[in-house]
Amino acid sequence: MVLLGMDLGGTKLAAAVFNEEGTILHKEHIMLGKASGKAAGQLIGSCLQRMLYSTKYGTVDAVGIAVPGIFHQSTGTVWAPNIAGWTDYPLLEEARNICKEIPVTIDSDRACYILGESWQGNAKQQKHAIFLSVGTGIGAGILVDGQVLRGAQDIAGAIGWMALQPPFSDEYLHCGCFENYASGEGIANTARKMLMAMPGGTGPLYTRQPAQLTALDVFEAYKHHDPVAMKVIGGCIEFWGMATANLVSLFNPEKIIFGGGVFGPAIPLIPGIEEEARKWAQPVSMKQVVFEPSALGNDAGVYGAGWLARKSLINKQPVGINDVQ
Amino acid sequence: MVLLGMDLGGTKLAAAVFNEEGTILHKEHIMLGKASGKAAGQLIGSCLQRMLYSTKYGTVDAVGIAVPGIFHQSTGTVWAPNIAGWTDYPLLEEARNICKEIPVTIDSDRACYILGESWQGNAKQQKHAIFLSVGTGIGAGILVDGQVLRGAQDIAGAIGWMALQPPFSDEYLHCGCFENYASGEGIANTARKMLMAMPGGTGPLYTRQPAQLTALDVFEAYKHHDPVAMKVIGGCIEFWGMATANLVSLFNPEKIIFGGGVFGPAIPLIPGIEEEARKWAQPVSMKQVVFEPSALGNDAGVYGAGWLARKSLINKQPVGINDVQ
Repeated sequence: MVLLGMDLGGTKLAAAVFNEEGTILHKEHIMLGKASGKAAGQLIGSCLQRMLYSTKYGTVDAVGIAVPGIFHQSTGTVWAPNIAGWTDYPLLEEARNICKEIPVTIDSDRACYILGESWQGNAKQQKHAIFLSVGTGIGAGILVDGQVLRGAQDIAGAIGWMALQPPFSDEYLHCGCFENYASGEGIANTARKMLMAMPGGTGPLYTRQPAQLTALDVFEAYKHHDPVAMKVIGGCIEFWGMATANLVSLFNPEKIIFGGGVFGPAIPLIPGIEEEARKWAQPVSMKQVVFEPSALGNDAGVYGAGWLARKSLINKQPVGINDVQ
Repeated sequence: MVLLGMDLGGTKLAAAVFNEEGTILHKEHIMLGKASGKAAGQLIGSCLQRMLYSTKYGTVDAVGIAVPGIFHQSTGTVWAPNIAGWTDYPLLEEARNICKEIPVTIDSDRACYILGESWQGNAKQQKHAIFLSVGTGIGAGILVDGQVLRGAQDIAGAIGWMALQPPFSDEYLHCGCFENYASGEGIANTARKMLMAMPGGTGPLYTRQPAQLTALDVFEAYKHHDPVAMKVIGGCIEFWGMATANLVSLFNPEKIIFGGGVFGPAIPLIPGIEEEARKWAQPVSMKQVVFEPSALGNDAGVYGAGWLARKSLINKQPVGINDVQ
């Protein structure tokens, strides 16, 4: 069994060939640049076309694709905020035209992250597990009884919109309260605002141009006890703790897995986040949940896509881990 | 088909006989007083014994019981914080000893509320619906794809513990942040504290003994624009809005139903709660969700218990609405 998993990002595409056991046999990255609309679709299509029959592992038996946004199961279309023109893009139809009799399955990146972890990462054997993805934005892939939580319109898991601090501020309008403070973009932004509000301070961050500041800079400065970085990251630990506490109280999961670009540098903060969550969460649920970093890192999405491919060959059931192993 | 549904509260038991279509043919209430431990079990048992064969509608075909706390499916035992001694009470075994060949199904009250609404109330046809129960405490019964969300240990839906306002305060230790402010007990408590912190004020609430104040008093005073009541209830609207926004963003449900003793007097506030939620929630999810009061009021639990009974006769699948009409 040869499986092709593709993880589409806003600027690049990762593609990996897996065997049935989930071992990556071959992996490559294709830069999408600023391709938008149909051009982005064509880049993906040409990669797909090239890899379907030409890998040295033989013809691909099934394809899975992770998309950076929402996949609407009923229409086969994609909403991807970081690819211009993809408000309702017919990716499934296009991929099927290329793949012909080879089955293609598409799902959102956040669904793929937790499916990847449940196949080959830190959520094996777990039927109730959550992947908290913190990168430019924030989303959650949620397994409920082995099935991905989708909601009425496939947009469940929009945890970046979590309300965590009243009163409402217009800052939250664009992306939600939690994401406004505790995403990669939020971290950089909050630090920028603090630096500009308190000019003339000391610490490594004051040596930087606020406009060029990234979350990585803030984490680097945090290591050196920069006072602004300490304040920004301290606030994030509180928000991450509150948000994961809310997941624990609502879902009673076995595991919460931290991933995305920020985890990364925030992995050493997980024990502190767990300590914060323990204050807030339903205590019995909190006692047995495990907080862990992603085992697959940047590959979580491509593993999840590989798993979608595998699943499509095994049966036509809704996506879930019940049939894994 | 004759179905017996029993809704066990902390101080009383409601029992109703249903036909297959979900019409209540007979209903009665039994006061439990302060019965605890085995004595509470015996009161329930004697009611069960009496009703199984003696109703004028014929022998009962199946029994469902809603319990005020958590029902552990794997052990058949109940944790009910308001019945002394019920930390792990073997209710299923006791009920089976009485019912013999008549099937008995038990579930938590919050599960029964949403199942009742999906059978005979405001969640008919909904596969993604949430019942927010606000009484002395706060809990949520959550339907995901027609199935009750249980989590790894049957304690999902513990929304009273939702973290909504940093920093953490020791006030939240006992019951959680959301419940501390926005439950019936929380409303009375917050009003009491305000009155004692600002003695000598004017308004109807100042004429009451703080120690005897109830949530109902606060709602009554709110109608008369009492300034303390306005502040307490205004705060609750914000918290209820934030909490339901978080449910909308995470679950992408079709409907949120407000019930429990507080909704009740808080029903006229639902449009204001929706307005608050709209500020915070994922906007696409928010656009299509419907906020409604319970159609069944105090009977939601007994309807849910009736539905458990009905379900046990139809098949042995996990509890859910997939099989309801």
